[in-house]
Amino acid sequence: MLTAGQLDSIQIVLVSPRNPLNIGAAARAMANFGFSHLSVVAPYEPHWREAQSAVGAETLLQNAKSAERLADAVKDCTLVIGTGTLAARKAEQPVVPLPDLGGRVAAELARGGRIALVFGSEKRGLSRDDLSCCHLLSVIPTHPDQPSMNLGQAVAVCLYQLASRACEPATPQLETSESRPPTSGELDRLAGVIDDVMLACRYSPEEMREANRHDLRLFLRHLALDEPDARRALGLFRRILHKLKS
Amino acid sequence: MLTAGQLDSIQIVLVSPRNPLNIGAAARAMANFGFSHLSVVAPYEPHWREAQSAVGAETLLQNAKSAERLADAVKDCTLVIGTGTLAARKAEQPVVPLPDLGGRVAAELARGGRIALVFGSEKRGLSRDDLSCCHLLSVIPTHPDQPSMNLGQAVAVCLYQLASRACEPATPQLETSESRPPTSGELDRLAGVIDDVMLACRYSPEEMREANRHDLRLFLRHLALDEPDARRALGLFRRILHKLKS
Repeated sequence: MLTAGQLDSIQIVLVSPRNPLNIGAAARAMANFGFSHLSVVAPYEPHWREAQSAVGAETLLQNAKSAERLADAVKDCTLVIGTGTLAARKAEQPVVPLPDLGGRVAAELARGGRIALVFGSEKRGLSRDDLSCCHLLSVIPTHPDQPSMNLGQAVAVCLYQLASRACEPATPQLETSESRPPTSGELDRLAGVIDDVMLACRYSPEEMREANRHDLRLFLRHLALDEPDARRALGLFRRILHKLKS
Repeated sequence: MLTAGQLDSIQIVLVSPRNPLNIGAAARAMANFGFSHLSVVAPYEPHWREAQSAVGAETLLQNAKSAERLADAVKDCTLVIGTGTLAARKAEQPVVPLPDLGGRVAAELARGGRIALVFGSEKRGLSRDDLSCCHLLSVIPTHPDQPSMNLGQAVAVCLYQLASRACEPATPQLETSESRPPTSGELDRLAGVIDDVMLACRYSPEEMREANRHDLRLFLRHLALDEPDARRALGLFRRILHKLKS
């Protein structure tokens, strides 16, 4: 959906984050999904300095901008998306479930817009005043018994949703088997040897043999065997047959 | 969202988790998305006890099961999904990007299957042996510069994806079997008997046996066996074994 270049037009904003571990976790998730622009609003200074200077802190954390008010942090953005739950308040702007946010974001980027995705503090989420800066409120669908997410996890989930179409792994395939499927003749040869093994070990009474043979042919066809599988199975059953007869 | 019954058929498995904060974060994400069955495999005991007895630990953490081996933890499951990145190794089973996992999960639930979603340890992910218990590997599409996710965040992202999308109508399936799929335990029993047969007929030299055993486990998982298939195959190989030994 998004291109890696478009990710550059998206800014992540943390409002009044308290826990330096959560700030680090947010930065980690940003790096995981290819985002690089972080802003913090009114951070608790000692914790913010601690997070920025932590060993192994991402470059993006060191380059993060700090602002006094959310309005300042998002002033260059054309679409400001607040995140949160709807438990506490009635939303005053359009609410878009997170799974449906991709299209709206892509449309904004396509017209050259700049986007901010805004997360509130661990304790209170976004204030009514913060929300007044937002064009949209995006909600992560959570279970009513435990709707409130950890900040670092909420950031990860939102960025995954936005980016999952942007940086798909280079390994594209759904199926790993690169081998050709076995031919009908190869399957019949395998069926023949298995049939001989069944006979040699008296697997079924004489009157059942024809039905078993039929089932075996069908069975081998509904398995997702590839050619090397069929060849290995043939080797094993030949070996068994040899042993049974010796 | 998934129905309560569907959520009840999905088990989350953490293999060798070390950091009690990550265990707590995984449990929190489970509660956020309505999952309640947690298993841990070979946990580091002091940290596991610490996580379980933490103030405010979820009931699901207190009710979590513990197992020595992954094979034991997933023995009742019909679809075992490993998670991870592809950075380190070539996958030996089908790889499904996380955004595409919903349809596969929905189809499995629709046919009455039980699912395990398996996460490796913080440091090393899932081992090759762990992966041999998995039918599928699901990969979170991350940025190549920082592919490795924090465990608690990875769990949150995966559960978000399953909870928000798995309820969508299943994509049409190729397989037409109406019988339930075999459980992981049933496949292991079959693998055990085939292994005995291979031994009894000296199918492979001693030094190849471990590798063959590994391949056999993977092979049985990539076949589209249903439960009656597995039962019939078990019967045949038992018969063969009996004959080879008599």
